[in-house]
Amino acid sequence: MKKHNFSAGPAILPAAVIEQAAAAVLDFNGIGFSLLEISHRSPEFIQVMEEAEALVSELLQLPEQYKVLFLSGGASSQFFMTAMNLLEQDGHAAYIDTGTWSSKAIKEARLFGNVDVIASSKDKQYTYIPKDYLIPEGAAYLHLTSNNTIYGTQFHAFPTTSVPMVCDMSSDIFSRPIDVSGFGLIYAGAQKNLGPAGVTLVIVNEELLGKVNRVIPSMLNYKNHIEQQSSYNTPPVFPIYVTMLTLRWIKAMGGLAAMEQHNRTKAALIYNEIDRNPLFRGVAQTEDRSLMNATFVTGDPAHEKPFLALAKEAGCDGIKGHRSVGGFRASIYNAMEQESVLALVQAMQHFERVNG
Amino acid sequence: MKKHNFSAGPAILPAAVIEQAAAAVLDFNGIGFSLLEISHRSPEFIQVMEEAEALVSELLQLPEQYKVLFLSGGASSQFFMTAMNLLEQDGHAAYIDTGTWSSKAIKEARLFGNVDVIASSKDKQYTYIPKDYLIPEGAAYLHLTSNNTIYGTQFHAFPTTSVPMVCDMSSDIFSRPIDVSGFGLIYAGAQKNLGPAGVTLVIVNEELLGKVNRVIPSMLNYKNHIEQQSSYNTPPVFPIYVTMLTLRWIKAMGGLAAMEQHNRTKAALIYNEIDRNPLFRGVAQTEDRSLMNATFVTGDPAHEKPFLALAKEAGCDGIKGHRSVGGFRASIYNAMEQESVLALVQAMQHFERVNG
Repeated sequence: MKKHNFSAGPAILPAAVIEQAAAAVLDFNGIGFSLLEISHRSPEFIQVMEEAEALVSELLQLPEQYKVLFLSGGASSQFFMTAMNLLEQDGHAAYIDTGTWSSKAIKEARLFGNVDVIASSKDKQYTYIPKDYLIPEGAAYLHLTSNNTIYGTQFHAFPTTSVPMVCDMSSDIFSRPIDVSGFGLIYAGAQKNLGPAGVTLVIVNEELLGKVNRVIPSMLNYKNHIEQQSSYNTPPVFPIYVTMLTLRWIKAMGGLAAMEQHNRTKAALIYNEIDRNPLFRGVAQTEDRSLMNATFVTGDPAHEKPFLALAKEAGCDGIKGHRSVGGFRASIYNAMEQESVLALVQAMQHFERVNG
Repeated sequence: MKKHNFSAGPAILPAAVIEQAAAAVLDFNGIGFSLLEISHRSPEFIQVMEEAEALVSELLQLPEQYKVLFLSGGASSQFFMTAMNLLEQDGHAAYIDTGTWSSKAIKEARLFGNVDVIASSKDKQYTYIPKDYLIPEGAAYLHLTSNNTIYGTQFHAFPTTSVPMVCDMSSDIFSRPIDVSGFGLIYAGAQKNLGPAGVTLVIVNEELLGKVNRVIPSMLNYKNHIEQQSSYNTPPVFPIYVTMLTLRWIKAMGGLAAMEQHNRTKAALIYNEIDRNPLFRGVAQTEDRSLMNATFVTGDPAHEKPFLALAKEAGCDGIKGHRSVGGFRASIYNAMEQESVLALVQAMQHFERVNG
């Protein structure tokens, strides 16, 4: 029986990418060595790094002043690095609070300057995206989290503002076209749409850097990583290679417009069933529903365990909701195929027949 | 023809580890998913993390107050994290400067307090390990770099002092038994003896932590990583798994005493040839020669390229010396087999017959 990986992250990767990654572990491009044991300064790996950078630029149509970095430390390190590099101690940054990850970003940024939370959806357990707020013109930046894995909400439109936006796109980058020119900095842990855990993509408008009056350790200074093309120190070679393979796959699938269509189709399948099936209801406000993580609950707590068991029998793995929300979460990232979403929809229909 | 990987890092890994790593990329332990796409909070990965920690503790016979962390960011991040966590702004730390990596550690530590370089071998291009120095009793810690990949020097004995030692063991950890109780903190990028690039081992005496008066971002605070068993955020899953496999391999090979014997045998083979062969001479002072990286030069610059070519024909890869030293460097980490060192020795003998 085929197993369907609905895990929220680390998450499903394209089957072709996994096969190529395994082959590279055994022998990289026929050079007689594993990818795991070659120098990050070898011509073979420099080519991987350059291709990965070029694919990011091409897929997102990056303006020239935007630099692409592959760092380590996860989005959690970006929570403080963004503020450390962009916010003066007496400066102000605006944050929109849409859940756990935004809250962590806010907490870390407060160590480096003044943080103004200009909007929050905490009043309704983060089940919506705030839309009514004023962005202070003097803010160093506006920070937002584009997709909220735990609550299943997503920004479907970004604010229009002259304040540079800093965005955590860990869970929806490369799932749809975006206009990068509105952003000053975008960061994303790889382990959803992009690759395995262990590498973090940063896209930064170079013009914003080098302006704060603060001592920054070399490894935490974006400028150093730009100068050294993400090899200021030994980069995470294997995670970067798998990311490059995934970017190649996205391009081969037709790029970001095709990805968005593919993701919209899958999301429609699952949300239509959530809305149709009397035994389930969605968690997030309809217009803010995430195309990546569909959150839903049963009306009846007694239904939870039986449905989880039935879904598991149908091969659907990883659909238990985050402990802070409960219920279920179907993460349907780029690499998930339509047939897997259909398997879950059928399990929901089966559950209705048995319990309805 | 067998190829021999003398790369300084990322470096050779045991063949059995590479095979198991590739298999796990395809299907992890028969669960039907790749290791690259499972949650770091899954029981399967928690087991990996716990086994990796337990193997570190067992192999190094760690006292109870020492905690094992698998972090990201490389040794380069430890250069500043150690000082950030252990050195007050008005405190003093003592450093021994044995080359490029020590110098970088010194530079980063200076951002956080007073750094006293109590000894340096810079006067002789870092070709020896300083032995005559006083360790100030009030120092927060004494920092040293146990093995210097570029120059081919290694501490064969560590100072005896009541000052806690902080040691960068990136290139010789698990190559020999050490008495951890003399150290306050040990760190090591994995990509030499331990695994692929992308994970950093930190072993820390918990009693030293939480004493500095400084705001530390969550991701840079060792205490947070200890509390969350290296999963404060998503850890680098695949690099940690390969590290665990390598630790299993070290244990199966007989542990650290057996590793040291194996490494001494290989080092003797190459150094005996360097000393015997009139066309080569060693770079490092004899008593400080590294068991991990043998550095040597020809007496005649015209011999450099021809020897590199001849070695390559014999399958010996990665023996070009670091650009700051020139000549040759044979990195002969744990996973390198004796036959590979013999292949290089034979190439040196062949070169003597042709050019002697």
